[in-house]
Amino acid sequence: MQVLKERIRQEGLILSDTVMKVDSFLNHQVDTELALAIGKEFSRVFGAGDQPITKVLTIEASGIQFAMATAIALGVPFIYAKKKKVITLAESVYTAPVHSFTRGEHYQISVSQKYLGAEDHVLIVDDFLATGAALVGLVDIVQESGASLAGVGCVIEKSFQEGRGLLEDKGVSVHSLARISSMSPGEVHFIEDNHYIQPIKESAAGC
Amino acid sequence: MQVLKERIRQEGLILSDTVMKVDSFLNHQVDTELALAIGKEFSRVFGAGDQPITKVLTIEASGIQFAMATAIALGVPFIYAKKKKVITLAESVYTAPVHSFTRGEHYQISVSQKYLGAEDHVLIVDDFLATGAALVGLVDIVQESGASLAGVGCVIEKSFQEGRGLLEDKGVSVHSLARISSMSPGEVHFIEDNHYIQPIKESAAGC
Repeated sequence: MQVLKERIRQEGLILSDTVMKVDSFLNHQVDTELALAIGKEFSRVFGAGDQPITKVLTIEASGIQFAMATAIALGVPFIYAKKKKVITLAESVYTAPVHSFTRGEHYQISVSQKYLGAEDHVLIVDDFLATGAALVGLVDIVQESGASLAGVGCVIEKSFQEGRGLLEDKGVSVHSLARISSMSPGEVHFIEDNHYIQPIKESAAGC
Repeated sequence: MQVLKERIRQEGLILSDTVMKVDSFLNHQVDTELALAIGKEFSRVFGAGDQPITKVLTIEASGIQFAMATAIALGVPFIYAKKKKVITLAESVYTAPVHSFTRGEHYQISVSQKYLGAEDHVLIVDDFLATGAALVGLVDIVQESGASLAGVGCVIEKSFQEGRGLLEDKGVSVHSLARISSMSPGEVHFIEDNHYIQPIKESAAGC
């Protein structure tokens, strides 16, 4: 997604070989016009399948704006999984353990069983794909619920980390709008997928 | 906002005199159509002033969908304050301490100084107004930044708690879309503001 990559080049603040801040337009201050365009792009990529998507799923907090934008484009509700450090199963929830490498902590994510079931066809959306820890947890929750999975859409992928491989090993279709092959302070390199070579062809599906 | 109150009557799960769950349509699973209508209503109420709103401000996580909807309606960016339990001032941030009565914990909210300044006219939006703790923190941050405040818009207000009073004591204009005067399991009563008596008049401003 060219407009996103331009924005990352202009405003992404690269602190090290693995840490980039995009909080001026994606995950602290949010450019709603760009977020809506991101949602439309996920809808275009994943929404063309035979089975209509019924729910968009993400995880609080920074996935919410992109799940919302995608849900608006698809005309469906979205769900955000809750993060909890303490295991409390007061009600019927699907849960998955997540280990955050960046924060060095374990937590649990949960989704109420009321809102996800075998009748659903789910698209998972998040801001970053890096180690894949949280996204693998969301995939596990979708599988536990009996719902089918349309795929995983990520805004920014750090392709030099293992997240995509972990998801693809589970048979999940992954599509990221900006795939970073390497970065260092002042410099960022993208994997130029066929999807992004102009003009964009609708036939270039999957990842 | 009639459609919201109907939805609360139909789907709000009242667990006690003070606790209501609205997670089927507002803050776990989200009805995007309703969220967009909520954003339009906040835009209508607060967007008509002499000074154009430049930013919408909320707090992660469950304020994000309503800040986004409002920011879409107003055509401006939104910012979500981060919650942190540990005080880390690695960069220049505005901060405010918050005491959560529901969770019995202290935390700190922060907004980067890069995204809020004296040139801004800010609308604060959140899902619930109850004790007002987090919202008072957001108001403090806006004041610290030198920005002017258009007001505070809340989706649901528990009018029997002290939040509105605390905000009004600070001179803040508060507008809530559904004001609950009392509730108990199976029963909810709303304060029927003039705003909500049909037909709605554009001239009924403020709170």
